[in-house]
Amino acid sequence: MQEGDKNIIYVGKKDTMAYVLAVVSQFNQGINEIHVKARGRSISKAVDITQIVKNRFMPNMLIKGIDISTEDVASEDGRMSKVSSMDITITKP
Amino acid sequence: MQEGDKNIIYVGKKDTMAYVLAVVSQFNQGINEIHVKARGRSISKAVDITQIVKNRFMPNMLIKGIDISTEDVASEDGRMSKVSSMDITITKP
Repeated sequence: MQEGDKNIIYVGKKDTMAYVLAVVSQFNQGINEIHVKARGRSISKAVDITQIVKNRFMPNMLIKGIDISTEDVASEDGRMSKVSSMDITITKP
Repeated sequence: MQEGDKNIIYVGKKDTMAYVLAVVSQFNQGINEIHVKARGRSISKAVDITQIVKNRFMPNMLIKGIDISTEDVASEDGRMSKVSSMDITITKP
Protein backbone atom coordinates (compact mmCIF):
# COMPACT_ATOMS: atom_id res chain seq x y z
CA MET A 1 0.00 0.00 0.00
CA GLN A 2 1.50 3.32 -1.05
CA GLU A 3 1.52 6.52 0.95
CA GLY A 4 -1.61 8.46 0.09
CA ASP A 5 -3.54 5.38 -1.03
CA LYS A 6 -4.48 4.52 2.49
CA ASN A 7 -7.99 5.90 2.37
CA ILE A 8 -9.00 3.93 -0.72
CA ILE A 9 -10.48 0.46 -0.40
CA TYR A 10 -10.59 -1.46 -3.68
CA VAL A 11 -13.36 -4.03 -3.57
CA GLY A 12 -12.46 -7.33 -5.21
CA LYS A 13 -12.96 -11.03 -4.65
CA LYS A 14 -12.54 -11.25 -0.88
CA ASP A 15 -15.51 -11.78 1.40
CA THR A 16 -17.67 -8.73 2.07
CA MET A 17 -16.76 -8.78 5.76
CA ALA A 18 -13.02 -8.51 5.00
CA TYR A 19 -13.70 -5.10 3.42
CA VAL A 20 -16.11 -4.08 6.19
CA LEU A 21 -13.35 -4.72 8.72
CA ALA A 22 -10.84 -2.80 6.59
CA VAL A 23 -13.15 0.24 6.53
CA VAL A 24 -13.87 0.12 10.26
CA SER A 25 -10.19 -0.37 11.01
CA GLN A 26 -9.16 2.66 8.91
CA PHE A 27 -11.79 4.84 10.57
CA ASN A 28 -10.55 3.67 13.99
CA GLN A 29 -6.99 4.62 12.98
CA GLY A 30 -8.15 8.21 12.67
CA ILE A 31 -8.82 8.42 8.94
CA ASN A 32 -11.93 10.54 8.42
CA GLU A 33 -12.69 9.94 4.75
CA ILE A 34 -12.55 6.66 2.84
CA HIS A 35 -13.25 5.88 -0.82
CA VAL A 36 -14.78 2.47 -1.46
CA LYS A 37 -14.10 1.69 -5.12
CA ALA A 38 -15.41 -1.17 -7.24
CA ARG A 39 -15.83 -2.20 -10.84
CA GLY A 40 -18.32 -4.45 -12.61
CA ARG A 41 -20.07 -7.05 -10.50
CA SER A 42 -18.20 -5.93 -7.38
CA ILE A 43 -20.26 -2.72 -7.36
CA SER A 44 -23.11 -4.48 -5.53
CA LYS A 45 -20.60 -5.67 -2.93
CA ALA A 46 -19.30 -2.12 -2.43
CA VAL A 47 -22.84 -0.98 -1.59
CA ASP A 48 -23.27 -3.91 0.83
CA ILE A 49 -19.99 -2.99 2.53
CA THR A 50 -20.92 0.62 3.17
CA GLN A 51 -24.38 -0.35 4.39
CA ILE A 52 -23.02 -2.98 6.79
CA VAL A 53 -20.45 -0.52 8.18
CA LYS A 54 -23.21 2.00 8.80
CA ASN A 55 -25.89 -0.35 10.12
CA ARG A 56 -23.76 -2.58 12.33
CA PHE A 57 -20.65 -0.65 13.30
CA MET A 58 -20.76 3.10 12.73
CA PRO A 59 -24.28 4.58 12.68
CA ASN A 60 -22.79 8.10 12.49
CA MET A 61 -21.01 7.32 9.23
CA LEU A 62 -22.06 9.59 6.36
CA ILE A 63 -22.20 8.86 2.66
CA LYS A 64 -20.60 12.00 1.25
CA GLY A 65 -21.01 11.14 -2.40
CA ILE A 66 -21.34 8.38 -4.96
CA ASP A 67 -19.78 8.64 -8.40
CA ILE A 68 -20.30 6.23 -11.23
CA SER A 69 -18.30 6.14 -14.43
CA THR A 70 -17.08 3.90 -17.22
CA GLU A 71 -13.51 2.62 -17.46
CA ASP A 72 -11.66 0.96 -20.32
CA VAL A 73 -10.01 -2.27 -19.33
CA ALA A 74 -7.78 -4.62 -21.31
CA SER A 75 -8.96 -8.21 -21.40
CA GLU A 76 -6.52 -11.12 -21.40
CA ASP A 77 -6.38 -11.23 -25.19
CA GLY A 78 -5.44 -7.56 -25.29
CA ARG A 79 -8.77 -6.22 -26.51
CA MET A 80 -10.27 -3.22 -24.75
CA SER A 81 -13.70 -3.36 -23.21
CA LYS A 82 -15.75 -1.05 -21.04
CA VAL A 83 -16.67 -1.67 -17.43
CA SER A 84 -18.79 0.39 -15.04
CA SER A 85 -17.09 1.64 -11.91
CA MET A 86 -18.27 3.23 -8.68
CA ASP A 87 -16.60 5.33 -6.02
CA ILE A 88 -18.47 5.71 -2.72
CA THR A 89 -17.00 8.39 -0.44
CA ILE A 90 -17.80 7.82 3.23
CA THR A 91 -16.86 10.02 6.16
CA LYS A 92 -16.79 9.88 9.93
CA PRO A 93 -18.02 13.07 11.64
CA MET B 1 -47.86 0.10 -14.62
CA GLN B 2 -49.71 2.53 -12.39
CA GLU B 3 -50.13 6.22 -12.96
CA GLY B 4 -47.23 7.99 -11.30
CA ASP B 5 -44.93 4.97 -11.45
CA LYS B 6 -43.97 5.66 -15.01
CA ASN B 7 -40.67 7.30 -14.27
CA ILE B 8 -39.36 4.41 -12.17
CA ILE B 9 -37.47 1.54 -13.81
CA TYR B 10 -37.06 -1.48 -11.53
CA VAL B 11 -34.01 -3.46 -12.59
CA GLY B 12 -34.47 -7.21 -12.40
CA LYS B 13 -33.55 -10.30 -14.35
CA LYS B 14 -34.05 -9.08 -17.91
CA ASP B 15 -31.08 -8.31 -20.16
CA THR B 16 -29.33 -5.03 -19.52
CA MET B 17 -30.31 -3.73 -22.95
CA ALA B 18 -34.02 -4.22 -22.21
CA TYR B 19 -33.73 -1.64 -19.42
CA VAL B 20 -31.52 0.65 -21.52
CA LEU B 21 -34.24 0.74 -24.16
CA ALA B 22 -36.92 1.36 -21.50
CA VAL B 23 -34.98 4.37 -20.21
CA VAL B 24 -34.33 5.82 -23.67
CA SER B 25 -37.96 5.22 -24.62
CA GLN B 26 -39.28 7.04 -21.55
CA PHE B 27 -36.97 10.00 -22.15
CA ASN B 28 -38.15 10.12 -25.77
CA GLN B 29 -41.77 10.17 -24.56
CA GLY B 30 -41.04 13.46 -22.82
CA ILE B 31 -40.29 12.27 -19.30
CA ASN B 32 -37.44 14.36 -17.91
CA GLU B 33 -36.54 12.46 -14.76
CA ILE B 34 -36.24 8.72 -14.30
CA HIS B 35 -35.36 6.65 -11.23
CA VAL B 36 -33.42 3.46 -11.94
CA LYS B 37 -33.91 1.24 -8.90
CA ALA B 38 -32.23 -2.04 -8.05
CA ARG B 39 -31.57 -4.35 -5.13
CA GLY B 40 -28.80 -6.79 -4.32
CA ARG B 41 -26.83 -8.14 -7.26
CA SER B 42 -28.89 -6.11 -9.72
CA ILE B 43 -27.21 -2.94 -8.43
CA SER B 44 -24.23 -3.49 -10.74
CA LYS B 45 -26.63 -3.85 -13.66
CA ALA B 46 -28.36 -0.57 -12.76
CA VAL B 47 -25.00 1.22 -13.00
CA ASP B 48 -24.29 -0.45 -16.36
CA ILE B 49 -27.70 0.66 -17.63
CA THR B 50 -27.22 4.33 -16.79
CA GLN B 51 -23.69 4.33 -18.21
CA ILE B 52 -24.80 2.71 -21.48
CA VAL B 53 -27.68 5.19 -21.85
CA LYS B 54 -25.25 8.07 -21.36
CA ASN B 55 -22.34 6.75 -23.42
CA ARG B 56 -24.26 5.34 -26.39
CA PHE B 57 -27.59 7.10 -26.61
CA MET B 58 -27.91 10.32 -24.60
CA PRO B 59 -24.59 12.07 -23.88
CA ASN B 60 -26.49 15.02 -22.36
CA MET B 61 -28.09 12.82 -19.73
CA LEU B 62 -27.23 13.89 -16.17
CA ILE B 63 -26.92 11.79 -13.04
CA LYS B 64 -28.82 13.91 -10.56
CA GLY B 65 -28.24 11.74 -7.53
CA ILE B 66 -27.51 8.26 -6.26
CA ASP B 67 -29.02 6.98 -3.02
CA ILE B 68 -28.15 3.71 -1.35
CA SER B 69 -30.04 2.14 1.51
CA THR B 70 -30.92 -1.15 3.16
CA GLU B 71 -34.29 -2.85 2.80
CA ASP B 72 -35.84 -5.70 4.74
CA VAL B 73 -37.13 -8.48 2.52
CA ALA B 74 -39.00 -11.65 3.37
CA SER B 75 -37.39 -14.81 2.05
CA GLU B 76 -39.48 -17.76 0.86
CA ASP B 77 -39.49 -19.37 4.30
CA GLY B 78 -40.85 -16.17 5.83
CA ARG B 79 -37.68 -15.04 7.54
CA MET B 80 -36.60 -11.44 7.14
CA SER B 81 -33.22 -10.54 5.74
CA LYS B 82 -31.53 -7.32 4.69
CA VAL B 83 -30.64 -6.36 1.15
CA SER B 84 -28.86 -3.29 -0.18
CA SER B 85 -30.76 -1.11 -2.61
CA MET B 86 -29.86 1.72 -4.92
CA ASP B 87 -31.84 4.51 -6.58
CA ILE B 88 -30.11 6.37 -9.43
CA THR B 89 -31.94 9.53 -10.50
CA ILE B 90 -31.17 10.55 -14.08
CA THR B 91 -32.43 13.59 -15.93
CA LYS B 92 -32.58 14.93 -19.46
CA PRO B 93 -31.79 18.65 -19.74
